[in-house]
Amino acid sequence: MASDGFQPLNEKLLVEYLKATPSLAAKLGNQFDKLEIKEIGDGNLNFVYIVLSPSGSIVIKQALPYIRCIGESWPMTKERAYFEATTLQEQARLCPDHVPEVYHFDRKMCLIGMRYVEPPHIILRKGLISGIEYPLLAEHISEFMARTLFYTSLLYLTTTDHKSAVAKYCGNVELCRLTEQVVFSDPYKVSEYNRCTSPYLDADAEAVREDNILKLEIAELKSKFCERAQALIHGDLHTGSVMVTKNSTQVIDPEFGFYGPMGFDIGAFIGNLILAYFAQDGHADKGADRKPYKKWILKTISDTWNLFYAKFTALWDKHKDGPGEAYLPEIYNNPDLQLLVKKKYMEDLLHDTLGFGAAKMIRRIVGVAHVEDFESIEEASRRADCERKALNVAKTLLKERKKFHSISEVVSAVEQLDA
Amino acid sequence: MASDGFQPLNEKLLVEYLKATPSLAAKLGNQFDKLEIKEIGDGNLNFVYIVLSPSGSIVIKQALPYIRCIGESWPMTKERAYFEATTLQEQARLCPDHVPEVYHFDRKMCLIGMRYVEPPHIILRKGLISGIEYPLLAEHISEFMARTLFYTSLLYLTTTDHKSAVAKYCGNVELCRLTEQVVFSDPYKVSEYNRCTSPYLDADAEAVREDNILKLEIAELKSKFCERAQALIHGDLHTGSVMVTKNSTQVIDPEFGFYGPMGFDIGAFIGNLILAYFAQDGHADKGADRKPYKKWILKTISDTWNLFYAKFTALWDKHKDGPGEAYLPEIYNNPDLQLLVKKKYMEDLLHDTLGFGAAKMIRRIVGVAHVEDFESIEEASRRADCERKALNVAKTLLKERKKFHSISEVVSAVEQLDA
Ligand SMILES: Nc1ncnc2c1ncn2[C@@H]1O[C@H](COP(=O)(O)OP(=O)(O)O)[C@@H](O)[C@H]1O
Ligand SMILES: Nc1ncnc2c1ncn2[C@@H]1O[C@H](COP(=O)(O)OP(=O)(O)O)[C@@H](O)[C@H]1O
Ligand SMILES: [Mg+2]
Ligand SMILES: [Mg+2]
Ligand SMILES: [Mg+2]
Ligand SMILES: [Mg+2]
Ligand SMILES: [Mg+2]
Repeated sequence: MASDGFQPLNEKLLVEYLKATPSLAAKLGNQFDKLEIKEIGDGNLNFVYIVLSPSGSIVIKQALPYIRCIGESWPMTKERAYFEATTLQEQARLCPDHVPEVYHFDRKMCLIGMRYVEPPHIILRKGLISGIEYPLLAEHISEFMARTLFYTSLLYLTTTDHKSAVAKYCGNVELCRLTEQVVFSDPYKVSEYNRCTSPYLDADAEAVREDNILKLEIAELKSKFCERAQALIHGDLHTGSVMVTKNSTQVIDPEFGFYGPMGFDIGAFIGNLILAYFAQDGHADKGADRKPYKKWILKTISDTWNLFYAKFTALWDKHKDGPGEAYLPEIYNNPDLQLLVKKKYMEDLLHDTLGFGAAKMIRRIVGVAHVEDFESIEEASRRADCERKALNVAKTLLKERKKFHSISEVVSAVEQLDA
Repeated sequence: MASDGFQPLNEKLLVEYLKATPSLAAKLGNQFDKLEIKEIGDGNLNFVYIVLSPSGSIVIKQALPYIRCIGESWPMTKERAYFEATTLQEQARLCPDHVPEVYHFDRKMCLIGMRYVEPPHIILRKGLISGIEYPLLAEHISEFMARTLFYTSLLYLTTTDHKSAVAKYCGNVELCRLTEQVVFSDPYKVSEYNRCTSPYLDADAEAVREDNILKLEIAELKSKFCERAQALIHGDLHTGSVMVTKNSTQVIDPEFGFYGPMGFDIGAFIGNLILAYFAQDGHADKGADRKPYKKWILKTISDTWNLFYAKFTALWDKHKDGPGEAYLPEIYNNPDLQLLVKKKYMEDLLHDTLGFGAAKMIRRIVGVAHVEDFESIEEASRRADCERKALNVAKTLLKERKKFHSISEVVSAVEQLDA
C-alpha cells in the first residue's frame, strides 16, 4: 500500500477489504465463502466490481490515478472518486428513486461501495442499440434532471449555500479539464486522439476544423461550461450513464459532477438520443426496419424535454416562497411576470441544451471517444452515412440553436435532415 | 481584545499597534512623537485612518463586524478585510501604477496598512461634482480595467488556476450578498432601506417596482452576477473608489472583490459617469453652465470604453499563445476567426457593461445608498429633475442594451434623453 493509503484492488485484496469493512460485509450477509466477483468496468475511466454473495450484492468502484481506457500515459486524479461519491449522495438525497444508494466511501482508497443495480437492468445505450422501448424513460430521467438541477440552483438555494457548494466542486477541476479538452477543443483542431470513420468522414472532420462559425459558437459554450455555476450537474449524462429496465431508471457515474450549466446535462442526454436515432439505420435489417423505433426515440426526446419543463417549473412554483434567491417573491409576485420570467429562463435553457447536446454529438463522431451506437455498425461506409447525418444535425443545432423555441421544432429539424 | 484577536482601533490603540509593527513603523521613519492621525472614513463601510509623521505616511483601514453608515444593526463579516487586502495585492501586481501598495495585512485585526494616496489626490466623485477635468482618467482607468480583468480571465489563466481562485473568492459571499440585495433586489420592491427624492420621484420609484420588463432583465443580470465567474472584479468600482489628480489615478477599496462578470466593473464606472453627467445641471450656475464639462464627461465615457477595448484586445493578441484556455491557438489561429471571436466577446461585454451600469444607476436613485453627485444638489425639485433623466436613461440602457453596438450609440442615447 502506498504511503497515502491507496492501493489498487484485485480480487484477493477486494475480499480482504470487504471482510474488514462492516458496512459492506453486512450487505453481503457476512458470507464470504461463496462470493462471486466480476470486474465489469466497460466504462472508460474506472474499475467496477460486482460482488455477489448468496444473501446480498454490492458494486465496488475504484478510481486509479489514470484513465483506464488509455492507460498510465494519461494520468487523471483519483480524487474524482470523492466527487463521484459526494455527487451520488447528493443526487440520491434529491432523487432517491433514480440513483443507487452509496453504502460506503473510502477517500484514501478512492473506493465507492454502492447498490448493485441488478439485472435485468442494462445500460440504456445497449437497449437503444437493441431497439428496446422504455415507456417510462422520459418520465424518470426528466424527474432526475428536474430535481437534481432545480434543488442545487439559485431557484432553491440561498447564495450562501450555493457559493459554498460551488467552492467545494471547484476541486473537481481535472475532470472539468478533461471535458474541456475532449468536448470543446479536440474536435476543432488536429489532435492525436481524434479519430473518425476514415476515409469516409475525413472531409467532414476537416470541415468541422475549418468552420469559423462553429468555432465561434463552441467558444461561447466552452466559456459557459467553465464560468457559469448554475447548478450541480452530473457532468457525463450520456446514455451510458443510465441503467434501465422497462420499469426502472438508475443514473450512475457522476464523477464529472460540478457546478456548471444545466443545459450540459439535459443536452448530453438528448444529444445521445439523437445519436441513437441516427444509428438505427445502421442496425436495421430485413426483419426490422427500425422505423417505429426511430419514432419512439423522437417521442422520447420530446417527452424528456416537455416533462422536464413541466416538472422543473412545477418545482419552481412549489418553492416560489422558499429559500431560493434568484427570484424573490416580493419582486416576482405577479402572475404575468412569473410567466414571463419562466418562459425566458426555460427558453435560454433550451438553447443551452441544444448547444451542449450538439457539442456532445460532434465529439462522439470526430473526437477521441466514440459511441457503441455507431461503433457497432460493422460496415464502415454504412456507419459513416449514419454518422454524417448526425454530424450535420449537430452542426445545425449548434449554430442555429437560438432560433428554436420548442422541442417539436428540434424534432422536425432532425426528421428533415434525416430525409 | 476579543478571543479571536480582534480589537476595534481608536487613536491610542492605533499608535500602540504602529509601534509594535515594524513594517508600518518603518514607513513612518520610526518617529512616533509628532504623529498626526485623522479618521477620515467618508465611505460607507469601514474606518480609515491617515497617519502622518514628519518622515512618512500611511493609511490604516479596519473593517468592523457591521456596516459603518448603518451601525451594529446591519452586521457584516469583518473577513471582508481579507478579501480587500488580497484583491488589492493582486490588482497592484497586475497594475502597479494605479493601485496603492499594501504594506501590511493583519487578518485577525481585519486591518490593512497601505500607501497614503496623498493630496492633491481627491476622490473622483468630488472632482466630478466640482467640474474638474482629468485628461488622463480614461487612459488610466481603462488600463486598470483591461489589465486586472484580462489577466484574471480564462483568456490568460488556465482553468486550473482560474477554478482555484474562484473557490477562494467564494468566501466573500457576504459582500456579494450585499450587492445582490442593494443592486439587484431592493430597488425593485418595497424595502425599508429604499429612499428617493420625495415626493417628486415617488411615482418614478413605483414605476420601477411595477415594470415587468425591467424586472425580467434585472433577473438575468442578477443570475450573471451570482453565477458567472468571468474574472476577478473589483466589485465596487464607482467614482468613489477612484482617487485622482490630473496626472494620477489610483483605485482603492476592492473589498467586494470576487470572480464575477467583467461588465459589472466597467458598468459601475461608466454608470457613475452617467450619473455625474446628469447631476451637472444641478451644479450649473450663472458663472458656469457646465455644458463643456458635460461634453468632457461624455468624451471620457467614450474614451474609457474605446481605450479599454483597444487595451484589452491588445493583451489578448499579446498573449494569444499564452496559458489562457478560452481560445486555444490551434483552434483560433486564423485572422478572420480572431476578428470574429473578439468582436463577439467585446460586444457581449458591452451589453453586460450597459446592463450592470444601468442597474448601478437605478439603485443610486431609488435604492438605499445615494450618491453625492445628486445629494449635493440642495433644491429637491431640481435634484429630482436630474435624477429622473438619469433614471430614464438607465431604464432604456437596461432594457435595450442588446441593441447597442458601440459606445457612440450609447453616448447619443444619453444626449437624446437629456434634451
Ligand atoms: N451500481 C452499479 N450496478 C450495476 N452495474 C454498474 C454499477 N455501476 C457501474 N456498473 C457497470 O459498470 C460499468 C462502468 O461503470 P461506470 O460507473 O460507468 O464507470 P466509468 O466511470 O469507468 O465509466 C457501467 O457501464 C455498468 O455496466
Ligand atoms: N490609501 C488611501 N489614501 C488616501 N485616502 C484613502 C485611502 N484609502 C481610503 N482613503 C479615504 O478614505 C475614504 C474611505 O475609504 P474606502 O476604502 O472607500 O472605505 P469604505 O470601504 O468604507 O468605502 C475614501 O473615500 C478616501 O477618501
Ligand atoms: Mg461510465
Ligand atoms: Mg465515469
Ligand atoms: Mg469606498
Ligand atoms: Mg500606467
Ligand atoms: Mg468599501
